[in-house]
Amino acid sequence: MRRIKATIAYDGTNYVGFQVQPNGNSIQAELQRALKKMMKGTPIPVYASGRTDSGVHAKGQVIHFDYPAAIQPAALQRALNSLLPDDIVVLEAVETLPDFNAQYHALKKRYSYTVNTSPVMDPFQRLYQWHHPYRVNVAAIQEALACIPGTHDFTSFCSTKTDKEDKVRTVYVAEVEQVDDCILFHFEGKGFLYNMVRILVGTSLQIGDGLKPVQYMADALAAKDRNAAGPTAPSQGLVLEKVWYPEQFG
Amino acid sequence: MRRIKATIAYDGTNYVGFQVQPNGNSIQAELQRALKKMMKGTPIPVYASGRTDSGVHAKGQVIHFDYPAAIQPAALQRALNSLLPDDIVVLEAVETLPDFNAQYHALKKRYSYTVNTSPVMDPFQRLYQWHHPYRVNVAAIQEALACIPGTHDFTSFCSTKTDKEDKVRTVYVAEVEQVDDCILFHFEGKGFLYNMVRILVGTSLQIGDGLKPVQYMADALAAKDRNAAGPTAPSQGLVLEKVWYPEQFG
Repeated sequence: MRRIKATIAYDGTNYVGFQVQPNGNSIQAELQRALKKMMKGTPIPVYASGRTDSGVHAKGQVIHFDYPAAIQPAALQRALNSLLPDDIVVLEAVETLPDFNAQYHALKKRYSYTVNTSPVMDPFQRLYQWHHPYRVNVAAIQEALACIPGTHDFTSFCSTKTDKEDKVRTVYVAEVEQVDDCILFHFEGKGFLYNMVRILVGTSLQIGDGLKPVQYMADALAAKDRNAAGPTAPSQGLVLEKVWYPEQFG
Repeated sequence: MRRIKATIAYDGTNYVGFQVQPNGNSIQAELQRALKKMMKGTPIPVYASGRTDSGVHAKGQVIHFDYPAAIQPAALQRALNSLLPDDIVVLEAVETLPDFNAQYHALKKRYSYTVNTSPVMDPFQRLYQWHHPYRVNVAAIQEALACIPGTHDFTSFCSTKTDKEDKVRTVYVAEVEQVDDCILFHFEGKGFLYNMVRILVGTSLQIGDGLKPVQYMADALAAKDRNAAGPTAPSQGLVLEKVWYPEQFG
């Protein structure tokens, strides 16, 4: 039995999210289907650093699973890529320590979110950016986001549909920049709550659009009430960019 | 009656091509559906600079049509963009001279074609690049393409399914460059035959892969026989980038 750590990328457009759901196809189901095929019918459960929602993308999601046969990680990667649909790819696979867990050992995650403000949306980016064709005050968003890094109770920035009791999370980076016609958000943290990045972006845009003052972000954070923050930005602008682990896991 | 010249972009993935076909949805049908809606049921035929095939994209296709009501071109553009599916957009609309014809007045067209040679395909580019994970000799392709610019009989680089008798076309530019993991082709010409760019790319890759010598391109051109050239590269790497017209048409 070998514990494998694999980094994967996927276009989430056609999936209900990472996790297996009764109502549609998931990234997890596709990975497990491919592994089962390689193992001639033996099911292999796959675990990720965390779920991603329907329509959310990943450029560096990390998973682990136990492969019950002798195989070189590079050969495993090639075999999986030949069996997976072309919107899911294995970027890297390594054999790791037997106790490695993609969720529990994650030290840090980075998400990006892209908002496109051009009057006419680029049709080639429609599945990867939120089209918001308005003049946005990026400096105001930057100022507002300054209160986010740190360890806080992020109840206001968590979907009420969550099953997590503890809403305290540590965020290291909450930044925004203008790149041509796009507003690009970067978030890094120890972990994130359900819809947290999308609610942070939705709240930011209320400020950037001038509908709310800069202070709205800090007030929302202090309120510990989902109703105190802005709407949830749409899924397609969100990308799980990278997950960090302690070095010993490879 | 106003003759409108419009520049459009589209992701061709979900279409049978530009032109209305019995077997699926086309860009032309979507444009005509949107215009008919604007005109409360009056059909408005739409004409393009040329067809694009199923799965082929455009960043600068040009169309013309007659709009039988008073409207500002900018308002027409906005109305069309609100009615069109989000994989087709109107980038620009101008009122032009009454005799403007998007096909007959085209002076020059530019196409690009992108080949991705990385071992693992980027899932976000799978609909816009041809995945060809091999080491390609780009310098050999460059040398081979030197025979293409000029006025030639391009029978060898034309699908046998064409209905065009005259296979003589003038090409101004046939270039290739390496950009990171991609091989990017640029073609400019007065006009192109059916599948011409894709057969030029397919032939180029035979040379770049070392399956054929550099001379293969010139020999294929001289043969005036479709069987003398290489295979047709897949549709998704091809983009109609731009169409040029005489200045008076705006």
